[in-house]
Amino acid sequence: MKKIPVIMDVDTGIDDAVALILAMSSPHIDLKGVTVVAGNQILDKTIYNTLSVVDYFGGGDIPVAKGASKPLVKELYYDAATHGESGLGTAQLPKPAITAHRLDAVDFIKETLENSEEKVTLVPVGPLTNIALLLMCYPHIKEKIDKIVMMGGGAFEGNMNAVCEFNMFVDPEAAQVVFDSGVDIVMCGLDITMKSYTTMEDILRIKATGTKAGEFCAEAFGVYYDRYVNNSRLPGCAVHDAVAVTYLLHPEWIHTERANVKVDIDGTETYGQTVCDMRPNRNRHLDNATVCMDIDREKFIDLLVAACESYK
Amino acid sequence: MKKIPVIMDVDTGIDDAVALILAMSSPHIDLKGVTVVAGNQILDKTIYNTLSVVDYFGGGDIPVAKGASKPLVKELYYDAATHGESGLGTAQLPKPAITAHRLDAVDFIKETLENSEEKVTLVPVGPLTNIALLLMCYPHIKEKIDKIVMMGGGAFEGNMNAVCEFNMFVDPEAAQVVFDSGVDIVMCGLDITMKSYTTMEDILRIKATGTKAGEFCAEAFGVYYDRYVNNSRLPGCAVHDAVAVTYLLHPEWIHTERANVKVDIDGTETYGQTVCDMRPNRNRHLDNATVCMDIDREKFIDLLVAACESYK
Amino acid sequence: MKKIPVIMDVDTGIDDAVALILAMSSPHIDLKGVTVVAGNQILDKTIYNTLSVVDYFGGGDIPVAKGASKPLVKELYYDAATHGESGLGTAQLPKPAITAHRLDAVDFIKETLENSEEKVTLVPVGPLTNIALLLMCYPHIKEKIDKIVMMGGGAFEGNMNAVCEFNMFVDPEAAQVVFDSGVDIVMCGLDITMKSYTTMEDILRIKATGTKAGEFCAEAFGVYYDRYVNNSRLPGCAVHDAVAVTYLLHPEWIHTERANVKVDIDGTETYGQTVCDMRPNRNRHLDNATVCMDIDREKFIDLLVAACESYK
Amino acid sequence: MKKIPVIMDVDTGIDDAVALILAMSSPHIDLKGVTVVAGNQILDKTIYNTLSVVDYFGGGDIPVAKGASKPLVKELYYDAATHGESGLGTAQLPKPAITAHRLDAVDFIKETLENSEEKVTLVPVGPLTNIALLLMCYPHIKEKIDKIVMMGGGAFEGNMNAVCEFNMFVDPEAAQVVFDSGVDIVMCGLDITMKSYTTMEDILRIKATGTKAGEFCAEAFGVYYDRYVNNSRLPGCAVHDAVAVTYLLHPEWIHTERANVKVDIDGTETYGQTVCDMRPNRNRHLDNATVCMDIDREKFIDLLVAACESYK
Repeated sequence: MKKIPVIMDVDTGIDDAVALILAMSSPHIDLKGVTVVAGNQILDKTIYNTLSVVDYFGGGDIPVAKGASKPLVKELYYDAATHGESGLGTAQLPKPAITAHRLDAVDFIKETLENSEEKVTLVPVGPLTNIALLLMCYPHIKEKIDKIVMMGGGAFEGNMNAVCEFNMFVDPEAAQVVFDSGVDIVMCGLDITMKSYTTMEDILRIKATGTKAGEFCAEAFGVYYDRYVNNSRLPGCAVHDAVAVTYLLHPEWIHTERANVKVDIDGTETYGQTVCDMRPNRNRHLDNATVCMDIDREKFIDLLVAACESYK
Repeated sequence: MKKIPVIMDVDTGIDDAVALILAMSSPHIDLKGVTVVAGNQILDKTIYNTLSVVDYFGGGDIPVAKGASKPLVKELYYDAATHGESGLGTAQLPKPAITAHRLDAVDFIKETLENSEEKVTLVPVGPLTNIALLLMCYPHIKEKIDKIVMMGGGAFEGNMNAVCEFNMFVDPEAAQVVFDSGVDIVMCGLDITMKSYTTMEDILRIKATGTKAGEFCAEAFGVYYDRYVNNSRLPGCAVHDAVAVTYLLHPEWIHTERANVKVDIDGTETYGQTVCDMRPNRNRHLDNATVCMDIDREKFIDLLVAACESYK
Repeated sequence: MKKIPVIMDVDTGIDDAVALILAMSSPHIDLKGVTVVAGNQILDKTIYNTLSVVDYFGGGDIPVAKGASKPLVKELYYDAATHGESGLGTAQLPKPAITAHRLDAVDFIKETLENSEEKVTLVPVGPLTNIALLLMCYPHIKEKIDKIVMMGGGAFEGNMNAVCEFNMFVDPEAAQVVFDSGVDIVMCGLDITMKSYTTMEDILRIKATGTKAGEFCAEAFGVYYDRYVNNSRLPGCAVHDAVAVTYLLHPEWIHTERANVKVDIDGTETYGQTVCDMRPNRNRHLDNATVCMDIDREKFIDLLVAACESYK
Repeated sequence: MKKIPVIMDVDTGIDDAVALILAMSSPHIDLKGVTVVAGNQILDKTIYNTLSVVDYFGGGDIPVAKGASKPLVKELYYDAATHGESGLGTAQLPKPAITAHRLDAVDFIKETLENSEEKVTLVPVGPLTNIALLLMCYPHIKEKIDKIVMMGGGAFEGNMNAVCEFNMFVDPEAAQVVFDSGVDIVMCGLDITMKSYTTMEDILRIKATGTKAGEFCAEAFGVYYDRYVNNSRLPGCAVHDAVAVTYLLHPEWIHTERANVKVDIDGTETYGQTVCDMRPNRNRHLDNATVCMDIDREKFIDLLVAACESYK
């Protein structure tokens, strides 16, 4: 199997860390770099966390580039209640030995794509600020993007309110730019990610791998797990961002629908909603996204466990 | 069983006619009057159709009052493609012998409620223009309203676009007034009404009753049925408005969820959406509606057949 | 000179009281009634103040009808800081001997207009809630309205923010209904009313009339005057609502422009702005309003003084 | 007098060409580069026109960098009716010998500012797309911007509708980013630019200079002049963009007001309006702009004539 060339864009974040581990440990992904955005925490913390995770679990030769510290239009809203003050819950990692790339995120992606012979898949799992800036500044770069596999939004679910997901809530204008860009999008929204949860039993399996990855993930899930079990209908915690990486590796585990997705940016009640038109009588020429709806959760958990085990 | 005092508000319309027949033929409903609004067709036609249906199937002593000819803010959008030029498909009824009430719709409802000793249930199945005007002009009348059982909106479905239903689309501002009024609402939206369809087999059963109601309904369903089968994923035509009357008679056949429902009136992509917050961690003190989600379709069809048979 | 048949709609309010005195003392105005709305203060206070003013200065045979206690869509915002806790500053009036009309405001206007052989001028000087409800409920009544001479809005000025005037701010949706109704409108907005101020010298002239009207007005202006002098660039206090009545009596003192006026109800920065298109190359067929821009202030003050003197 | 370091951002355009001639012929301006955006015409034409003008009137050693071909969010709206099919009316210039800079507009400005020891003034006279992208991608660059002297908007005037000016209309979202950026702005909007017109007499003076600049300007003004005289209340054509350059050279000729300026991007009637709060009781800590209101037109015309004469 040919390696899939990928750039991830993260706001690390507990589930971002898991997604990075999944990508870095996979023999099928060629991770050409990681760009960082503010979201789950402020940029200073998301860049620090990303450097730590990449250094500790990736070997340190993957470039990490610093991106936007705030959304395009709104002020930054971040979520210390879910991801903790550090952004990684109670988990601790060694101080990273690596530093951020000389280029900022937008220029790093642009240069990497320009220098790549094959098309690259972008995997943003935080607010879409960096990706929107890239597409607005360098529209010609779209030709080098294979597709955008993103975590965010939801066809029938919201978590910030009835209809809006966190990444869309943080930067809805950026999301609109990305969905209107003409680049084909795979949307891993709450419809699928709320079905991609780890129960306590799963977390214990991850911990039982005994690897540094298993120890880290189990510790990071602690408070995060409690928050989900107390505030949602789930019997575990959703590992949102890891779903986007799973889609790259095993699309056959995932049920999808084609749709025309628009992001509302001016409704009082619907600001940031990903409006997904999947009606059978819609104009299918306007379809711009593949919306992920369901996943084989057992296999997803097995994949997480295997990723942790690979650090043995 | 005590009779339920009811005023219906209609924009007759094929499924409005069926809803009226269901209500007028039921021994359990005390239909104190019918008010009319523009929607499926222009007001001249919806008032004519309502007078015809009430005269022919109701005996003619039920008051019919004329209401708003256009939405609060928008221009009227109506749907001749679905309901035909007359508004009743290809069905024909005798010229009505009755005429509209001396009072207009808003004053008729106000006077009827003021004169009623018991609270009355309002059953609007068209755009909510008349009901919004009533609630804005005479807020004190809310004390005499038991609840509003309405057809319109949808938690997870739209038919005018991905998220907006026809009645909401025609007058979203009126819908917002009604949902924000403080009166408790039962919403029979597309979630349930798209499950309340009649197949060709069902239509043949209705016709086979041999009554004037059965003949009329079967004829009216003709073009309407074709349109649904060609443009939706349904194996029949949705009898939307009849669901609201069914809720009055047999709430036990219907699965519901409590929710906080807001109507978006300023989103470009979401104008007229009924945003339904049903999240387990929502603030339940803000719940203002019971949202109907599913129905025992077999029993619903049996009820329609029995209503037609009662004209023997 | 034939008397001008008028219904005023007020939210009394210091300047509303002056406007009422101006209208009631004029031999040229046939004041057929006064309807009341919430605005400067809550409805309980604006109705009480209106009854007091009409009883004390009008002789008590002018009907006063109670209207809307809150705007169409928004919650009520009122302005105790400007008009005082009572709504009439520190002025005191005897307890009114009259009570509100049996009909509410909308029905009172409707009935009065239906029973009038000639067209009537509506003079709303508060939020436009009552007038919007009238026009939405009874569109046929437009034929009996000569024109609407209203106080509110502004082409180039705001007082709640850079572009929005108080009456528009309180009920922008109602204002939109009125401006889009097709009835011709004379808009006395901040452009003219901020030029219609009383200096301390003027107030002393008014007081010096020695009449009960002069005493009342001078007392009512007290705190109101201070607030203007401290918070605006004016050398006195703007008597906004009296300008609309002045327009009825002496349009020749007032400079106007024709315009197409729309009310913005969805801009974050512009909610409630009266957008006035006066460009020479606009489509003049869309003109719906005469916008008052300037006034002969000396004559306006003389009129106020004369009105007070007439109570001798 | 020390030279003022400047980068201009243009969408050439007739008045852009005059502004460039004014800047390039001035001994007091150090024009470090010109960036180009779509606006008056499509990008292919605005870049061609800019290269032509810079080559023919500037000597060709000024870098010209290509920027955004479309607004941030909206589709491009351009104005061939005013500026002609070529964008320069009926004027003809030799084919440019120079080509666009290797860097695109955003990176050119970034690099130029990073390499500059002193702060630079940005002078955008078209839609603000390039400047918004710069500020969003490289927020640190704000420290190197002295101020932004821009042409666009209006406190009390619009030309696309009652309240919206062309450059704001083309890219309102970009304008919002720039006005909210924290960089101090001098706004040369329609309030001043509609007072900065050339009459036929002025155009004849310009032509009478006999220089290549005088000939070009007089020819370019032809159709543009007719359009203004026929569609506005002006006795000549507004040379909008040249006003921004005039502000740099002779601020003492210009009357200004401090203001808090916000750009509305969601009002139906006010999309793209520059809402200018100049009220005496506003919160002056929020002031972000100097709004130009009036100009000594005679001196402005003398300056244009002198600029043309300098090509002798």
